[in-house]
Amino acid sequence: MDKGIVKIGLLGIGTIGSGVVTLLKKNGRAISEKIDVDLVLEKVVDRDPAKLQSLGLPEETITTKAADVLEDPEIDVVIELIGGIEPARSMIIAALDNDKHVVTANKDLIASHGEELLAIARDKNLNIYYEASVGGGIPLIRPLKQSLVADRIHRLVGIVNGTTNYIFTRMDQDNLSLEDALLEAQKRGFAESDPSNDIEGRDAAYKLIIMSGLAFSSSIEPDQVHVEGIGGVTYEDIAYAREIGYAVKLLAIGEKLPAGLALRVHPALVPLAHPLAAVLNEFNAIYIEGDAVGEVMLYGRGAGAMPTATAVLADVAEAARSIHHQCVDTMIEGTFHKASFVPIKDIRTRFYLRFLADDRPGVLSALANAFGNEQVSLDMVIQKRSFGDTAEIVLVTHLVREEAFQKALEKVMALPAIKPNPSMIRLLG
Amino acid sequence: MDKGIVKIGLLGIGTIGSGVVTLLKKNGRAISEKIDVDLVLEKVVDRDPAKLQSLGLPEETITTKAADVLEDPEIDVVIELIGGIEPARSMIIAALDNDKHVVTANKDLIASHGEELLAIARDKNLNIYYEASVGGGIPLIRPLKQSLVADRIHRLVGIVNGTTNYIFTRMDQDNLSLEDALLEAQKRGFAESDPSNDIEGRDAAYKLIIMSGLAFSSSIEPDQVHVEGIGGVTYEDIAYAREIGYAVKLLAIGEKLPAGLALRVHPALVPLAHPLAAVLNEFNAIYIEGDAVGEVMLYGRGAGAMPTATAVLADVAEAARSIHHQCVDTMIEGTFHKASFVPIKDIRTRFYLRFLADDRPGVLSALANAFGNEQVSLDMVIQKRSFGDTAEIVLVTHLVREEAFQKALEKVMALPAIKPNPSMIRLLG
Repeated sequence: MDKGIVKIGLLGIGTIGSGVVTLLKKNGRAISEKIDVDLVLEKVVDRDPAKLQSLGLPEETITTKAADVLEDPEIDVVIELIGGIEPARSMIIAALDNDKHVVTANKDLIASHGEELLAIARDKNLNIYYEASVGGGIPLIRPLKQSLVADRIHRLVGIVNGTTNYIFTRMDQDNLSLEDALLEAQKRGFAESDPSNDIEGRDAAYKLIIMSGLAFSSSIEPDQVHVEGIGGVTYEDIAYAREIGYAVKLLAIGEKLPAGLALRVHPALVPLAHPLAAVLNEFNAIYIEGDAVGEVMLYGRGAGAMPTATAVLADVAEAARSIHHQCVDTMIEGTFHKASFVPIKDIRTRFYLRFLADDRPGVLSALANAFGNEQVSLDMVIQKRSFGDTAEIVLVTHLVREEAFQKALEKVMALPAIKPNPSMIRLLG
Repeated sequence: MDKGIVKIGLLGIGTIGSGVVTLLKKNGRAISEKIDVDLVLEKVVDRDPAKLQSLGLPEETITTKAADVLEDPEIDVVIELIGGIEPARSMIIAALDNDKHVVTANKDLIASHGEELLAIARDKNLNIYYEASVGGGIPLIRPLKQSLVADRIHRLVGIVNGTTNYIFTRMDQDNLSLEDALLEAQKRGFAESDPSNDIEGRDAAYKLIIMSGLAFSSSIEPDQVHVEGIGGVTYEDIAYAREIGYAVKLLAIGEKLPAGLALRVHPALVPLAHPLAAVLNEFNAIYIEGDAVGEVMLYGRGAGAMPTATAVLADVAEAARSIHHQCVDTMIEGTFHKASFVPIKDIRTRFYLRFLADDRPGVLSALANAFGNEQVSLDMVIQKRSFGDTAEIVLVTHLVREEAFQKALEKVMALPAIKPNPSMIRLLG
């Protein structure tokens, strides 16, 4: 078969866009040799002419008008790196309308409108590739779609937010407060100046939606994910966790329970012997449990221009192969069924709890009684430190339904000896 | 596009073959829904009629004659699970001659004849899929071929032998001797009754050849891999390693150095903070370093009927998709160039050394002098335990060329105060 040519239009020159241009310049020839197709960067669009100039591309390649890409009949594949919902969504639809395959790194868009866009693509016998939307350079979407196609996945647990993982690692290793660790992350480029999407768990929730949709072949709306951020975790919690054999991580958990899917993002205590506990700093990892395959973990850099650019170009290469080999109709895998969802209140888990109480006889037994009366059984109680007449109490429960635990907690917190504002962190089961 | 049907012939009912039959029975419908193709197990071959009967398949499906599969024009995809070189090689060639795609888990065959077979497949516009030949259910071949297609990989380091990793884990955690740990592995089904292929590193070497061929687009012959087994590693070495911050692992290392490819399998000290150090028991992991992607690790169960069956059926699904979508010509990725190789003597590494010496003044300085005279500089010397008038000395060198180290070691071992038979383990750099 003769060597093919596939022409690419690139929308958006931010960090990842520049990375894609750089990587294609550097490795284009090697890629072409591997896939038997020359990848030609035909046009690059950005609103900002200065950014376009900085790429060092020929004048005829750069343009500030998206229509120059979307309506160019020469272009086979459009890479969308604008981010956000609009105008990215409309541009992807326009690209599909003009018979172009689409590659995107747009997590927010795929999480919230992925099914809609994939349905349009399928009708047009085209495909949308989105490996770069989750986990940067970590092979993840393709393994979920293809490598694990023969298995039934019953759980996936991800550390999919590099900012919060970096913060927890610094808090643990350097005894920093959350605030200081965040400052450090911002200084090192691992947190944005407004880090709220990361800190509050929304970034991880979007990624969980994309992964769970594929893993469980299910249609998932954002409001079906229970989301808690890392704001309530203190340095003391991380130190206690380590003392009892756990690391604290922000986890994105998707589970197929008998009653339906349970999807949640929250900080959690991960046993130190679990492979996820060894995922440090800005690294990401996704731990997948399948009936047949057992446990699989995919680990790497979940963000950054160059790692993410490798995922974008891997998708472009797959689109190019499919075009070059004249495959008939689209090869979209993934069906999205209606699913039932299990609300957080019905999930059974174990809880870590740390709070202050009056340091006097009888407090611990009142506490144990209050939990016991609500059928919450305790696995571990530690009372180690006192501050004047105040004692610090740490406890870990056995498995308990969330709703029952919350009810018991309410009663415990109503005891006169117990101070308000406890730390509460769930355990990875 | 209407739903397609792809018919499969299966050669060989061993552990993995039974796993494939079981998994297809259980998940066939779900797979079919994801890929829009029904996978039909048309014929199953084994020499042993009893094994065939045990599958519970219809009579017309089972046969003891390979020709019934290889020459059946109805069959689109042949799964080869016989193992070994012949007759597996001839059967795969016959399958290709009869226009069938091939899926195989045959590590020995792909490592030693993969290029030959892929060339035949390419000429016939067919493909050979071999995800199951390395790392059981871990997505590995597909990530190397597709997900990392845009990057230049400069190193891969694998724990790819579950038997030896299980043995080292038991030696470390339960203070067992190598012999006792091996017995335990055999009892638990993690080692064969003749474990020499695993213990002596040959199994890992074959897997390294397959991975490195893809990662470095290079043609590799088995004799270009330096192979050492785990026989020389004692419980004491593992304990000392942990004391100085390392875990001992049997590593398969492929590196692209300026002078060429360096390929080797040997036990190594891995820093405890390295993600590979947390790979325990029978688990496998492959740590890949790319110029753009940074570090990626793929982790999971490297063996076992069901994990490996997921890899086999993922390959069958990929073949089925390509058939169903009428892709023109083969989509084999991977070019295998002639490469230069760097012999082990020219590789620079650090060494751990443990030996016994007379416990008298001047021995340590004679030792340091002997190394110093050969330009081998020491990073660490520990002398802690004595047995009567014999002292145990552990040292770690700085980076040094293998040949220079071996020469220095020879001189050191010739010193009258030094006892023979040192333990020597390289460090992961």
